[in-house]
Amino acid sequence: MMLSDPSQKYRPFPQVNLPDRQWPSQTITKAPRWLSTDMRDGNQSLIDPMNAEKKQRFFDLLIKVGIKEIEVGFPSAGATEFDFISGLVKNGSIPDDVIVQVLTQARPELIATTFESLRGAKQAIVHVYNAVSPAWRRIVFGMERSEVRQIAIDAAKLLRDHAAAQPDTDWFFEYSPETFSTAELDFSLECCEAVMDILLPTPEKPLILNLPATVEAASPNIYADQIEWMCRNISRRDSVVISLHPHNDRGTGVAAAELGLMAGADRVEGCLFGNGERTGNCDLVTVALNMYTQGVKPGLDFSDIDEVIQTVEYCNQLPVHPRHPYAGELVFTAFSGSHQDAIKKGFAAQEARNDLIWDVPYLPIDPKDLGRDYEAVIRVNSQSGKGGVAWVLQQDKGLKLPKRMQADFSRVVQELADSTSRELGAADIWDAFGKHYRVSGEQPYTLVDYHETGPAGDRVFVGKIGFEGGERSISGRGNGLISGVLAALRDELGIDLEVADYSEHAIGVGTDVNAAAYVECRTPDGVTIFGVGMDCDVATASVQAVLSAANGLAARRK
Amino acid sequence: MMLSDPSQKYRPFPQVNLPDRQWPSQTITKAPRWLSTDMRDGNQSLIDPMNAEKKQRFFDLLIKVGIKEIEVGFPSAGATEFDFISGLVKNGSIPDDVIVQVLTQARPELIATTFESLRGAKQAIVHVYNAVSPAWRRIVFGMERSEVRQIAIDAAKLLRDHAAAQPDTDWFFEYSPETFSTAELDFSLECCEAVMDILLPTPEKPLILNLPATVEAASPNIYADQIEWMCRNISRRDSVVISLHPHNDRGTGVAAAELGLMAGADRVEGCLFGNGERTGNCDLVTVALNMYTQGVKPGLDFSDIDEVIQTVEYCNQLPVHPRHPYAGELVFTAFSGSHQDAIKKGFAAQEARNDLIWDVPYLPIDPKDLGRDYEAVIRVNSQSGKGGVAWVLQQDKGLKLPKRMQADFSRVVQELADSTSRELGAADIWDAFGKHYRVSGEQPYTLVDYHETGPAGDRVFVGKIGFEGGERSISGRGNGLISGVLAALRDELGIDLEVADYSEHAIGVGTDVNAAAYVECRTPDGVTIFGVGMDCDVATASVQAVLSAANGLAARRK
Repeated sequence: MMLSDPSQKYRPFPQVNLPDRQWPSQTITKAPRWLSTDMRDGNQSLIDPMNAEKKQRFFDLLIKVGIKEIEVGFPSAGATEFDFISGLVKNGSIPDDVIVQVLTQARPELIATTFESLRGAKQAIVHVYNAVSPAWRRIVFGMERSEVRQIAIDAAKLLRDHAAAQPDTDWFFEYSPETFSTAELDFSLECCEAVMDILLPTPEKPLILNLPATVEAASPNIYADQIEWMCRNISRRDSVVISLHPHNDRGTGVAAAELGLMAGADRVEGCLFGNGERTGNCDLVTVALNMYTQGVKPGLDFSDIDEVIQTVEYCNQLPVHPRHPYAGELVFTAFSGSHQDAIKKGFAAQEARNDLIWDVPYLPIDPKDLGRDYEAVIRVNSQSGKGGVAWVLQQDKGLKLPKRMQADFSRVVQELADSTSRELGAADIWDAFGKHYRVSGEQPYTLVDYHETGPAGDRVFVGKIGFEGGERSISGRGNGLISGVLAALRDELGIDLEVADYSEHAIGVGTDVNAAAYVECRTPDGVTIFGVGMDCDVATASVQAVLSAANGLAARRK
Repeated sequence: MMLSDPSQKYRPFPQVNLPDRQWPSQTITKAPRWLSTDMRDGNQSLIDPMNAEKKQRFFDLLIKVGIKEIEVGFPSAGATEFDFISGLVKNGSIPDDVIVQVLTQARPELIATTFESLRGAKQAIVHVYNAVSPAWRRIVFGMERSEVRQIAIDAAKLLRDHAAAQPDTDWFFEYSPETFSTAELDFSLECCEAVMDILLPTPEKPLILNLPATVEAASPNIYADQIEWMCRNISRRDSVVISLHPHNDRGTGVAAAELGLMAGADRVEGCLFGNGERTGNCDLVTVALNMYTQGVKPGLDFSDIDEVIQTVEYCNQLPVHPRHPYAGELVFTAFSGSHQDAIKKGFAAQEARNDLIWDVPYLPIDPKDLGRDYEAVIRVNSQSGKGGVAWVLQQDKGLKLPKRMQADFSRVVQELADSTSRELGAADIWDAFGKHYRVSGEQPYTLVDYHETGPAGDRVFVGKIGFEGGERSISGRGNGLISGVLAALRDELGIDLEVADYSEHAIGVGTDVNAAAYVECRTPDGVTIFGVGMDCDVATASVQAVLSAANGLAARRK
């Protein structure tokens, strides 16, 4: 059992004293600088960390997506890491507009190895960190504040001196007061100021101050308060880049990044699809596409999201969840009938308006912008109504069923879904359609041949009908083709139907069937029977549709 | 390619004019009412919706977890739904303190079917909705505001009248202005007020006003603004229960629920692990455990989270992601050496402090509170350092390696991990340990038997050593056992070692080995060799440890 009173064991997170906070009234109007830590924070938390081949693939993907700052590893962590990073620098595969970043703990021998791995780089960011929160000071280091600050100062001096010793590289620095989100703000500030006093950043060459939610320990508004507090209190605001590094322990890493940007941050560190230690880092894909759907250019290209997913899943050996925002297999899928219906109307309205603005119910982004198909949008299970079924027929076969026929057929599909208790695929639906409307299978009456004569308004239909193993000629007179067929069926075969509704439309290019006709027929005793005809000839399709209804009546009489 | 300028296609979400908003200074101090819509919103979005058996399992799980309000379905959606709900009501499996809720669209025939399905219920919540946002009014309904409001009014009247016609049930009502989050606040309010005017809620029998983010279309602070605005402007605040229903299209559903509660809401609708349409509903497990880790009793029991996961995965046929907050397979796992080290120190400090307060680096919750094992916490890959390796040996074998020996062995494991490029299991580590410290495998010197004589401070070791296929007796004199063994090895076998460090500890109960001894030896030329001995006798373990080092020296000389 859970503790009956967890307040004995867990403490509420303290609020930040910031009654005049400004961030809740801000909006995000431009993209931040993006730093991918997929190859560092992401990689170190994998069951099987990437080998060199996977790392190269991931690196290439990040370049393709448009990430300009890439944390490629932790050079002092082992031979695999060092060799890959040093190879990347030496083999010239880093584009000029991309800067690699490496992480190191604040220890002399590790910093030395780190600089060694970057020998020959045109430019690089060296990222040094030390944990500053009281729990870490007490439990992990057994140190006072001043000792912990001294670690940061010593590290900054080493960065400065190593950089000076390798002057052919254009060096940039990042300092993380690790565990920032659970530390006292004044002490984080003190450490940052101490590092700035050594590295002397300028507006032209700013220092990146990365303020991590190493462990997400409070709701995202608290993180935003912390960021706003830092932005307001840091001494050389114009000479630092405030960077966010939210983790996702409370499931609010994306929100933390967004509220943190509203609070004044300039840069976001994270991973594609939110990989990273434990619950992961904030998901750069979601943060970027959230901006995109608000009309803000994210500067990242996810127009082929499936390719991005495939590469990331291959490299991380972890799945992207079916409900992952924007990327999951099911996120553009509607099973519910009312949702399907609304989406269908939305697409129609979009087409009718013919403007650029995206406004389709239940779809916050146009799936096409991510290289996704509309066809995945609507799927059919027992919770679906007529909208979804009609959609599938329209998408797959080009059929636009009249409204009452949609309702008729949706009942057929619903019963089928209820009885099979599984999702129905497009093939199931098409199969059910063929059977129910006598398009497929052996039928009592089949059209062999026909012709039509006579003046407008007084037409004679003469047809050859396959019937009971043989053929039979029938004829009938009416004011048009369909009434002629109906007369022939009534007079010669005793099939008494009248047409309550009729429609026909062309079907898209590239098939040999290019017309579909629908009839809604009634018998004298009021039974409604729908018929469908499909043919390359528009007239023949109509005749087929009436015969389909006739076959329906024959089936009922059996 | 993505649109070069998506601002042509997407519009920024408008802000709420609420400069004096209060929610950013609020905290969550008590649990809300929880409504699980797993069996409705969750179910309708599954590839394969649940059959009756799965629905019953899910229902039973929700009861066990402690959910008191359960939306069990959409009775008018089809026979499967209707039959299950009506069966649930009739078979008496609803506990007295649990109330079932059902959803219906605002249409007369559907409302009638809905009430029919609940015939015989002791109590029930009927939840009616109609979409109110401008996009839905325009695209889906083609209706003006007044017509949409009339739908709500008509539905409310039907609820009132049907309830009166089935007086044996204690009826409660919920009204959702669907698409609330993308609607004009004044119109949502207007619809809610109109429904209240019909249903006449009181503080004793309040109306649930559910304000859904049907599609999450803005950052969660905007949803909080919307909720606070409604809470402030609704006329009979004491007679309504303000309910949240956040979706997760922007990946911030949990944050929306939390900020919405801070903004004054009383109730949260969602699904376990965030199932639901598209990207899912807000995840009730995460929202509840977030409260738990802040010392707030959530009123829900996830003390056996693995059982909850198994049932939900079975019923939904969807996975819980490995990085899902609190529940994922990897969220209590640290692969990074520095993380492992800090966690290890955290556990030690926790044990030493012996108080209730949970304060372990990198672990926001005690895995034991969720029925998880500590052993899953630390796993070893090439990114791991000595902390993790030592932890695994301690957890699995009870061995507490001295610090320098941890460092020695972590290098061995690191090389192994680098060369295999995969996660190392506990068995791999134990195997490497046995080989590296000559605990397993054929060794040059083995201990057959020994005894020890002489007064304190002047002891004589006499031992029988297996050597080159035979046995050999050796003896040596020292101030204790170990120095006697060292003398015997030096004088009789030419193995010259001195001991730089020695430690020994008992191993936990229940095994036949209950002592482990470690020696750190040096050769005259300064080479360090570690030795390990394990035996049921503490003295024998020490002798074994020295022999293990001797075997190490022999191996080097080969």
